[in-house]
Amino acid sequence: MADHRRFFVHPDRIDGEEAVIEGGAARQISKVLRLGAGDSISLLDGLGNVYPARITAITTGRVRARILGKQSDVNEPKLRLVLASCLPKGDRIESIVGKCAELGISEVVLVRSERTVPRLDDNRDKRLARLRRIAREAAEQCGRSKAPDVRGVLDLGELVEMVPQFPLAIVAWEEEDGLSLKEALKGRTGVESALVMIGPEGGLTEREVQALESAGAVTVSLGPRLLRTDTAAIAACAAVMYELEGEL
Amino acid sequence: MADHRRFFVHPDRIDGEEAVIEGGAARQISKVLRLGAGDSISLLDGLGNVYPARITAITTGRVRARILGKQSDVNEPKLRLVLASCLPKGDRIESIVGKCAELGISEVVLVRSERTVPRLDDNRDKRLARLRRIAREAAEQCGRSKAPDVRGVLDLGELVEMVPQFPLAIVAWEEEDGLSLKEALKGRTGVESALVMIGPEGGLTEREVQALESAGAVTVSLGPRLLRTDTAAIAACAAVMYELEGEL
Repeated sequence: MADHRRFFVHPDRIDGEEAVIEGGAARQISKVLRLGAGDSISLLDGLGNVYPARITAITTGRVRARILGKQSDVNEPKLRLVLASCLPKGDRIESIVGKCAELGISEVVLVRSERTVPRLDDNRDKRLARLRRIAREAAEQCGRSKAPDVRGVLDLGELVEMVPQFPLAIVAWEEEDGLSLKEALKGRTGVESALVMIGPEGGLTEREVQALESAGAVTVSLGPRLLRTDTAAIAACAAVMYELEGEL
Repeated sequence: MADHRRFFVHPDRIDGEEAVIEGGAARQISKVLRLGAGDSISLLDGLGNVYPARITAITTGRVRARILGKQSDVNEPKLRLVLASCLPKGDRIESIVGKCAELGISEVVLVRSERTVPRLDDNRDKRLARLRRIAREAAEQCGRSKAPDVRGVLDLGELVEMVPQFPLAIVAWEEEDGLSLKEALKGRTGVESALVMIGPEGGLTEREVQALESAGAVTVSLGPRLLRTDTAAIAACAAVMYELEGEL
């Protein structure tokens, strides 16, 4: 199945035997890919199910398809990896969300810390919707059956409260010069879920790091080179997937 | 030393006791950062040396500084990692070069393969110069004392000839479903140099992969999700650095 023929549809639009596709996906099918009745597509319900399907009819703005089967959790990692990222400057969060979605993460949580400068503010709903669309499209393209959720913006205190849920919570901190990420992950195979936290451009404060540590997080150094926020997030997620899941 | 006060200068402009800075770096110092005589900066000669220095005079378009010392190979990894990437669509190569420079790679080699669509063509020198500038700026920002070189465009056959130079050469191939990257790197600590090859959007052909393998390269799968070229390059370099260097 060519990967550009995979589309997320709301689970309500799949009734077991037939699916009704509207909106952007319908436009993509009929106008961009110029598919027609009889052509094969794959539908994803965002809950981890993939449905091979065949187009039965195309009308204005609407595509009907017959469901031919169902597979679950296709290309989903066993590890549930959550990335908590302070909102970086510019549109870096978009590349973080897209690339980390490809790398198999389950969720991106946007966090506001003392030194986090950018705000979502008035545009909050619009920007979150855009980030969710980027996550969904990246998941479609790379062949995942689930799209990562994007949540936020949480205060750092709210993130601290989430930490104990995770058997492994890692905070990348540029002032940490002891434990490396590799040392922190050593021997931790079999972990079912992990949290990776990337601070803001200005760094987490000592007090914020202490709060995260008190909740059970481990502070690590990513190495001697000071990585940009987006590079740190993508590279740390890649390394965690590599080590704990065994593949990117 | 604040990282925004680090500047690459040509080694010819450092005579042991004094440095003369011109061009973009001089503008950055005098106009953007508004530094003056007596302020501290760091100069990088691109050969791995870092010179703490103090500004002695600023004239139009020129900054003079007194050299106070010399350190070598600051923040440079022991591993010499070379990324060979087929030229991807759009400006993805720019993000590959910038992020991989932060991750400590030594060189990016641009490759032309059978299914590589984009060409540098007429703009070749201009685009290579731009990529080298991106590499240099990323190296400055992250605190490296060397900037990775950007070379190309090589034919795949020329890359095949380079493969035997490397004790470890890895080719990411989406049709490989046996060996994972992690399996290929297992127990390979102590490797001094490694080549990572990322194919074009359309994939390497069977024949190209065979030629690379005959020269000694190992074909690996990055995992079940089909990564975009830039994600594959950045994540693979991060994973190789993580495994062989021990940090990102």
